[in-house]
Amino acid sequence: VLLGKAITLIESTKSEHKAIAQEVIQQCLPHSGQSVRVGVTGSPGVGKSTFIEALGTYLADRSHRIAVLAIDPSSRLSRGSILGDKTRMERLSNHERAFVRPSPAGDSLGGVARKTRESIILCEAAGYDVVLVETVGVGQSETAAHSMVDVFLLLLLPGAGDELQGIKRGIVEMADLLAVNKADGDRLDLARLARREYYNALHLFPPKDNDWTPQVLTCSALEGTGIAEVWLTIGQFCEHTRPNGHFEWKRRQQARFWMMETIRAGLEILFFENPALRQHLSAMEAAVQAGEISPFQAAEEMLGQFRALK
Amino acid sequence: VLLGKAITLIESTKSEHKAIAQEVIQQCLPHSGQSVRVGVTGSPGVGKSTFIEALGTYLADRSHRIAVLAIDPSSRLSRGSILGDKTRMERLSNHERAFVRPSPAGDSLGGVARKTRESIILCEAAGYDVVLVETVGVGQSETAAHSMVDVFLLLLLPGAGDELQGIKRGIVEMADLLAVNKADGDRLDLARLARREYYNALHLFPPKDNDWTPQVLTCSALEGTGIAEVWLTIGQFCEHTRPNGHFEWKRRQQARFWMMETIRAGLEILFFENPALRQHLSAMEAAVQAGEISPFQAAEEMLGQFRALK
Repeated sequence: VLLGKAITLIESTKSEHKAIAQEVIQQCLPHSGQSVRVGVTGSPGVGKSTFIEALGTYLADRSHRIAVLAIDPSSRLSRGSILGDKTRMERLSNHERAFVRPSPAGDSLGGVARKTRESIILCEAAGYDVVLVETVGVGQSETAAHSMVDVFLLLLLPGAGDELQGIKRGIVEMADLLAVNKADGDRLDLARLARREYYNALHLFPPKDNDWTPQVLTCSALEGTGIAEVWLTIGQFCEHTRPNGHFEWKRRQQARFWMMETIRAGLEILFFENPALRQHLSAMEAAVQAGEISPFQAAEEMLGQFRALK
Repeated sequence: VLLGKAITLIESTKSEHKAIAQEVIQQCLPHSGQSVRVGVTGSPGVGKSTFIEALGTYLADRSHRIAVLAIDPSSRLSRGSILGDKTRMERLSNHERAFVRPSPAGDSLGGVARKTRESIILCEAAGYDVVLVETVGVGQSETAAHSMVDVFLLLLLPGAGDELQGIKRGIVEMADLLAVNKADGDRLDLARLARREYYNALHLFPPKDNDWTPQVLTCSALEGTGIAEVWLTIGQFCEHTRPNGHFEWKRRQQARFWMMETIRAGLEILFFENPALRQHLSAMEAAVQAGEISPFQAAEEMLGQFRALK
């Protein structure tokens, strides 16, 4: 209950809440970092929610404490966003060792991602030892999720051939683990074939700097098969990257990345939310689009005005 | 000769040159915009230089005035970069109606791209009516090139099957025109097959907002075949997108984009090149990476210091 309230505080847009939220995060920081952070992505229809419920319940039943967070930039449109439907994971939501939170709302992917990133710290401080970050395969949200997790899992549909084409190559490159879901019934052979094809395709990619070879598994979230193997492989990933230092290195890089991103976002807010500059910017935009002033000259003048305001 | 000197001025990093360069661009602006700007990209080995020489010579021989510019972020490493080798296009370089310029050097893709974008304005004001912007298939350089051209041409190698997988999907999506080069000798059948496969694959993509269906052609830059058809198709693209307003709309969007990008880059320079902030930033980075302070808290403190400097 307390965790939920703390996250609500983080998600608040009220400025008086922001300072308190930062203080809470700062207090939680020394108690954070003890979980395995797992990113889960895949195209719509691949069965992400069912998979997360299956994996989460499997782990919660084995004494793990599971937090499920989400990054869904479309959540700005309505609180009932693609990943916002908590009832989809009814069994897991009601589990005493699980915490399921829909995607925060926000005006930008950066804002949504930041809130999720902060929530991870709170969940860890609250004692959750596995944090699952679900994301939709839309825009740059996988990149955002990837920048805050230890292991990145890509769910795939069974079926052969040119499937990799339907998924952005960059996302396959990000994945540490691929799982062909819906490997059940009639689709079992197809799933095995897809697994082999993905496995072969992965060999075309250059090796990762963490010296880990991405694995391809099959599973059926519906029947609960292959879920144990996914968790086993996540464990192997950690055992592989912790001794070689890459696990910690990546977390440090991620922390640095988030600092830099927050600075960049903050600079843009300072500029673009200044009323005087905004007004001038509208006029400049019109002049630039009409070809009266070069975009570079216009930018220099705007920056000059910003400096003068200082 | 004057154009070359003006571009050298733009490329200069000396601050006294920068103000003059902006003045020159501003003077050229009313005389710019009258060319067709064509982006040319493709994997290394696809024959970009040979193709550009073939297309450029074809056009220059037909009274067009051709400027060839390049965006190659690797040019920061050495002036003799991948796209810097002017001698590769010896025939075109010596043509009286052609102007060939290697990629500007720069510390960042943004800087390199900006200089190329500015050079387009100068080339147009100097009367060049076709501007070819060559780019390497590395990192985000295609995106940068795409943001400054009217038509985007992707060169491909003959060969069947899974070739689209080797090219980032986003780049195929950007292309208005695909040309399978090296369609000569033994490779003619392969090239035709590849053309058909790309054509079929393109049908899987959603329609573009300019209502233009990307075309796939074959050509041989070596033998000079198919080059006329490429130019014809570029003409058809312009005839299609000019009446529906998309041609001009895209240019206005691009101008706006460059203003915004320049503002963002300028804000980062103001922050990250401030000596006091830089020193503090190093200390903060260490604290963040050690987990002593949250990345968000660190960013807020840095931004607070920036505001105080104002």
